[in-house]
Amino acid sequence: MAHPPIITLTTDFGLSDHFVGAMKGVMLEIAPDAQIIDISHAVQPFDILDGALTISQAYSHFPSGTVHMVIVDPGVGTARRPLILTGERHMFVAPDNGVLSLIYDREQRISVRHVTAEHYFLQPRSNTFHARDIFSPVSAYLAKGVEISRFGDEIKDYVQFGAPRPKPIDEHTLRGVVLKVDHFGNLITNITPQDAPLLFGATPPAFTISVGTKGHANRICTSYADGTPGEVFGILGSMGFLEVAANRGSAHQLLGAGKGSEVNVVMESA
Amino acid sequence: MAHPPIITLTTDFGLSDHFVGAMKGVMLEIAPDAQIIDISHAVQPFDILDGALTISQAYSHFPSGTVHMVIVDPGVGTARRPLILTGERHMFVAPDNGVLSLIYDREQRISVRHVTAEHYFLQPRSNTFHARDIFSPVSAYLAKGVEISRFGDEIKDYVQFGAPRPKPIDEHTLRGVVLKVDHFGNLITNITPQDAPLLFGATPPAFTISVGTKGHANRICTSYADGTPGEVFGILGSMGFLEVAANRGSAHQLLGAGKGSEVNVVMESA
Amino acid sequence: MAHPPIITLTTDFGLSDHFVGAMKGVMLEIAPDAQIIDISHAVQPFDILDGALTISQAYSHFPSGTVHMVIVDPGVGTARRPLILTGERHMFVAPDNGVLSLIYDREQRISVRHVTAEHYFLQPRSNTFHARDIFSPVSAYLAKGVEISRFGDEIKDYVQFGAPRPKPIDEHTLRGVVLKVDHFGNLITNITPQDAPLLFGATPPAFTISVGTKGHANRICTSYADGTPGEVFGILGSMGFLEVAANRGSAHQLLGAGKGSEVNVVMESA
Repeated sequence: MAHPPIITLTTDFGLSDHFVGAMKGVMLEIAPDAQIIDISHAVQPFDILDGALTISQAYSHFPSGTVHMVIVDPGVGTARRPLILTGERHMFVAPDNGVLSLIYDREQRISVRHVTAEHYFLQPRSNTFHARDIFSPVSAYLAKGVEISRFGDEIKDYVQFGAPRPKPIDEHTLRGVVLKVDHFGNLITNITPQDAPLLFGATPPAFTISVGTKGHANRICTSYADGTPGEVFGILGSMGFLEVAANRGSAHQLLGAGKGSEVNVVMESA
Repeated sequence: MAHPPIITLTTDFGLSDHFVGAMKGVMLEIAPDAQIIDISHAVQPFDILDGALTISQAYSHFPSGTVHMVIVDPGVGTARRPLILTGERHMFVAPDNGVLSLIYDREQRISVRHVTAEHYFLQPRSNTFHARDIFSPVSAYLAKGVEISRFGDEIKDYVQFGAPRPKPIDEHTLRGVVLKVDHFGNLITNITPQDAPLLFGATPPAFTISVGTKGHANRICTSYADGTPGEVFGILGSMGFLEVAANRGSAHQLLGAGKGSEVNVVMESA
Repeated sequence: MAHPPIITLTTDFGLSDHFVGAMKGVMLEIAPDAQIIDISHAVQPFDILDGALTISQAYSHFPSGTVHMVIVDPGVGTARRPLILTGERHMFVAPDNGVLSLIYDREQRISVRHVTAEHYFLQPRSNTFHARDIFSPVSAYLAKGVEISRFGDEIKDYVQFGAPRPKPIDEHTLRGVVLKVDHFGNLITNITPQDAPLLFGATPPAFTISVGTKGHANRICTSYADGTPGEVFGILGSMGFLEVAANRGSAHQLLGAGKGSEVNVVMESA
């Protein structure tokens, strides 16, 4: 590796405490030339799916060999296992609670290990901050090149869940859900072009996208700036999902809808 | 260059999503030894002037050769052009919407290019996240030393706006505006010592600075700690503008004034 | 030193302005290969104790030789002195207002210097942003290896305060205070196992921890996940203090208590 090792962080720890700073200190003590990159520390607290979504949208852009540490860990201090996942080009360090579920989906040829080599952990070890005491040193030793087999044995029974999928309700209606609201107030649904090919086709039939109670969208725009003032519209977002959005405005506020809101796409009979 | 290349980021993307992490991944894949520094991701959403102010206050402190990426881009996916600006010591990568206006003002001998060399872009390219797909790889290739002329041709018709300037209303009154409220609640006006030399002189005449409806300032302090409890006062801030401030308090809250509020400086007849 | 110099930042500047970016620019201009790590910029504005707590929880994890810059500085522009503190393994740069108090407590063999060597400061120097104009360049020159004695003379009369300590109210009651509320809503008290050994013993007598008016805790859990839904409980947190917490919930919200709230630990007669 010609460049410094890269470690990314995705957590629900926020930035208002010493947590992230202490973790970086632990890592740099072990791997002082590591480049540590924050992906986000604003995963919704305790929300494993939100953490899974966040890392799934960012990891693949990083160079081969990057170590991605992903900590949303409501079970800290219990028997839930610390894991190392190796995919095709990247490594992941996380608790075994499903937060890597979308990585298991996307990566071919993965290997998952249960980290048991306690001599890589910080001593003394707290019961409430394993991100600092277990996951950070393990990530740093991995980044430094310690052989993966030295951390623990391979397992097959790791926790995995499926992200919620949209469902056809009748022949005209597809029902999905808002996965998240982004910083701009765009409503990111779980509906992909594969789920609703007509919607993103060259000449879609008339349709209505309903979410929340204050309005709905009747067209797909190809850029945010295509929207008229106050209009909400559908758009294929950069996450690969249908977003409900507004031009220089917040669909979240305009529609009164948010994370978990039901999304109904009704196609008029063609 | 003896040190790693430096890229700074100024955006309105916030820190709650994967956006900034994905951008950094793209950059590090191309320039893995780059040092990527966040200036701020809390530019007001879609607010081009706020982005222009933010980068204008930070860029000059960085070493020569730094690449500053500035993304406030409500027109993403439309025909607005991606630009590279080269100034005396720094380079800037931004959409052509005026977000570099204050740089055009401050730098002598600038050159602006329209980036058209699509082989530097990410493939496939989204229509809604050009910061990841266009601006990040261009910034990284620039930081890596790719010759500027290879990105596209020089242009002269780039978008530039003037920041709002204070105006004399009558012989005693200067009217300005609050450009922004900082983290401490200080009200940053657009009034400079050149605009109101008497105010910052050794023996200013009596004056009133009015902003909001709940009070006003009658003196200039030279440090925040000079203020008495509950007092609002004027101070020459580090941005080079008149600030209306309070000692260990928020002028924003005390006065009920914010971004866009009118500021009237009335000098008593000398 | 085989690795790049490390500088950490702990401030109350927030992330919504150009402040932190400008400071990093100043540092990189002087020490372009420095690795600059944010500990937190969300110290409560003007709250010196909160800054002291934050740095005290993070600094020791960093490699030897790290320079920690700690800026909570309501007295900026007044006669308060800029300091360099050298401890056993780390260096600290801060204003002389007590923000390093908990470091003075923890480190053996410290040396404190009053920084007077103005040729290391930025010119011209503002009166309101010494973090940029004084503390950042001093930190960068220190990280770069400039001899400490060149910054100024040693002093002994630096400002130090004691963190608030819990007090016995009667033979059954210990009274403490909530030092801070963390990102998850855990209430961090100032009570350590040394203050209340029975509480953290193997078989504690019955007790009540009261904080706020909406409930209280009657047991100590060893992990957050041990709590039942809606329950608040005590736990020995990673900061070394008794925390009042909830499982996947916010004790802050459940109890209506926050920073500064009184905490009463009442032990039933054993």
